[in-house]
Amino acid sequence: MIIDKKSKILIVGLGLIGGSYAMALSKKGYSITAISKEQPDIDYAIEKGIISCGFAEVNANAVSSADIIIFALYPNVFVEWMKEYGKYIKAGTLITDVTGIKGAIIEKINNLVPQGAEFIASHPMAGKEVYGVKNADDGIFRDANFIIVPTRDNTPNAIEKCKSLGELLGFRRISYLNPKQHDEMIAFLSQLTHCIAVSLMCANGDPNLVSYTGDSFRDLTRIANINENMWSELFLLNKDALLYEMDCYRNCFDKLYNAIRDGDERVIKDMMRLSTARRKMFNKDGDNI
Amino acid sequence: MIIDKKSKILIVGLGLIGGSYAMALSKKGYSITAISKEQPDIDYAIEKGIISCGFAEVNANAVSSADIIIFALYPNVFVEWMKEYGKYIKAGTLITDVTGIKGAIIEKINNLVPQGAEFIASHPMAGKEVYGVKNADDGIFRDANFIIVPTRDNTPNAIEKCKSLGELLGFRRISYLNPKQHDEMIAFLSQLTHCIAVSLMCANGDPNLVSYTGDSFRDLTRIANINENMWSELFLLNKDALLYEMDCYRNCFDKLYNAIRDGDERVIKDMMRLSTARRKMFNKDGDNI
Repeated sequence: MIIDKKSKILIVGLGLIGGSYAMALSKKGYSITAISKEQPDIDYAIEKGIISCGFAEVNANAVSSADIIIFALYPNVFVEWMKEYGKYIKAGTLITDVTGIKGAIIEKINNLVPQGAEFIASHPMAGKEVYGVKNADDGIFRDANFIIVPTRDNTPNAIEKCKSLGELLGFRRISYLNPKQHDEMIAFLSQLTHCIAVSLMCANGDPNLVSYTGDSFRDLTRIANINENMWSELFLLNKDALLYEMDCYRNCFDKLYNAIRDGDERVIKDMMRLSTARRKMFNKDGDNI
Repeated sequence: MIIDKKSKILIVGLGLIGGSYAMALSKKGYSITAISKEQPDIDYAIEKGIISCGFAEVNANAVSSADIIIFALYPNVFVEWMKEYGKYIKAGTLITDVTGIKGAIIEKINNLVPQGAEFIASHPMAGKEVYGVKNADDGIFRDANFIIVPTRDNTPNAIEKCKSLGELLGFRRISYLNPKQHDEMIAFLSQLTHCIAVSLMCANGDPNLVSYTGDSFRDLTRIANINENMWSELFLLNKDALLYEMDCYRNCFDKLYNAIRDGDERVIKDMMRLSTARRKMFNKDGDNI
């Protein structure tokens, strides 16, 4: 175990993800401190044994005594936090995050990390359509991917420790991508799918539809229940990659539209065959297939 | 029970849906005869007790002795079948179907139904991404909607019997729509969602994506595994309603695209708030919400 049991781990931001990290690590016997802006969240987390100690304001001592700091904040809040309080971080501290985009923040954060400390970006690809520490659930990592996003500035030791963190949290799979690859992948798999679900829900307001809805529509629109503050920020911070994926998708949608309009059965069937073949690669055990 | 236990029920087409109907009705004590083109399907269904008797060719006697005939065929095959064999149907027989579009077939079928028999359209909104009687499963109706699509030509007795059929099959909810309402609802809830899933899978062929895929993407693309023969036929038979829904959806998608491109956070957030509010109406117990 490369992360010593006596390591002081600080989590900044006790939301769903920060809270779930804290829960998983506490269960493994680590002592977790948290900084989060709402006192009731701190109280709740202590009462439930999710953290051992917490502060509703930034506590310089808690920051400077941490060996590992995990930031579970919105990207822009993370940057602002570092501008204001980054100076408290001591040399030797390992910093990581949970941010859903990487290119837009890594350099900014690196410029704010004090000499001797190190930031290694990572992204837990897990979530729920609910928020806050009261919904914390370390089970969400069990079937999920943990992505480490190193740059040439990172040391092998930091990469190795980050991997151990992913293992401790119980992720099914740990992998490595550079920031550009990460952001392109996220633009397609996550951001574009949220754009689609939101657009679909906005397209039709007939309240009678609920009565006729089957599971396919529910599955497709589950992510249309979306935190507008977090996701609008993520979209805008990854604008180029997202617009590119939206363009590619729209071209396919338009091709299908035109084929239906023109009665071009060959094109429709070709697209469906391609879609079916590709989707089979994504099947999991337990799929209804 | 309005459908007498001694009724002779004939199912034409032993696919997933025809087979699941047969399974549900046999369990309720009805004696089910089937006509389906593959002898191995007939043999399998008899062996498993799904039907009591079956024919791999159209048997005039089986058709003319049926009190109720359920057509579980592709729409165009249904029409062709009626052209060729509809004459065998006796007066007093109730005919229904499972077809996913209604406007394009009801009049055609009505013109082919012999004097004294009656066709009442219905649509079991249930399915799986697998095919054939070997995947028959009457459990798929339990949480699903059964839609009866009467026209002014239908008698109250036929509507009532069709309702009893939906009850016998175990549907959670039975409702009534006219053909136009049905086809518009299906265009949005079912056909558009399949168009979206197919387009999304066609938009990106990177095989590495599988490693990073979470449940959201899997949920959204489950229906991208699609039977191209059935669905291209359904799309083209409901072209006008489907193109209309595709247009509305694309307008929303374009609005979101433009807002992201222009950095217009207000529009993005407004759309997300609308989407979230509407999606909440679709929540079911057991949703992760």
